Amino acid sequence: MRNKIEIEKIKHENFNHFLVLIDKLAEYEKLDPPDHKAKKRLRIDGLHDNAKYEAFLAKIGDNYVGYLIYFMTYSSFLALPTLYIEDIFVLEESRKKGVGQELFNYCVKKAKERKCGRIEWHVLDWNKLGQDFYKKNKAEHLSNWHYYRLTKDKFDSFI
Amino acid sequence: MRNKIEIEKIKHENFNHFLVLIDKLAEYEKLDPPDHKAKKRLRIDGLHDNAKYEAFLAKIGDNYVGYLIYFMTYSSFLALPTLYIEDIFVLEESRKKGVGQELFNYCVKKAKERKCGRIEWHVLDWNKLGQDFYKKNKAEHLSNWHYYRLTKDKFDSFI
Repeated sequence: MRNKIEIEKIKHENFNHFLVLIDKLAEYEKLDPPDHKAKKRLRIDGLHDNAKYEAFLAKIGDNYVGYLIYFMTYSSFLALPTLYIEDIFVLEESRKKGVGQELFNYCVKKAKERKCGRIEWHVLDWNKLGQDFYKKNKAEHLSNWHYYRLTKDKFDSFI
Repeated sequence: MRNKIEIEKIKHENFNHFLVLIDKLAEYEKLDPPDHKAKKRLRIDGLHDNAKYEAFLAKIGDNYVGYLIYFMTYSSFLALPTLYIEDIFVLEESRKKGVGQELFNYCVKKAKERKCGRIEWHVLDWNKLGQDFYKKNKAEHLSNWHYYRLTKDKFDSFI
């Protein structure tokens, strides 16, 4: 039973473990982690009846070792929902035990349940480990699409 | 009053105009348009009480000349919703009248109302017109993120 991986939905009881894991991903991705106020919003937005995202933790024994955040988007041409993976992360010391694969399989299971036409996500350009993992899982890199963002500081002064 | 642009939410009465515009975008992007069954799903998914996407038409006089589809996604690091633009399109014969700008401004207005931290979207690599438009609107091209997709035909045989 060693290395048995369990998937647990976020709830009040495990939420602090979830927040610790998000900080670890931010550290790994060299991005700013959510601050105190953002963590309060994460709790409300994730545990609310009309949750703004869905999240799950991976557990080995008593240890929370990874997490997954996804939500439903939509393809207008397929006219089917898309499962969009916002984050999938495994602690560095818990890798090579199949945790990432288990979390990705969980996305596939959910995508089938919700009758999605696609699963989509983004990976940072330097994250070769992630890119190799997704290649192994038959995913396609859509290099013909450019990804754009307009941040609040810019659109606030916009109209 | 010439060229006055009105923005109209999709509803039963204008839905066929919406479908014609989607076909025109597919033609412009050299992608397959939604088939008959997909169009039926689009109607249900867009007009349902728990709609899977939000869509608006741009109208000049009696003519429907463009459309917009968006939905809410979520940034785990900001802990704020993101307004994601799925489609924004203006008929070729109705360009240079400010319709695209009006639809984009409408996204900004909605992003403010919903307290979003970001607006995001993708543009095809050959669509220089679109890229110039978004650059003019201060958007950032996130070239350090790789965009991935796993399609249903692949994940169906997965686990």
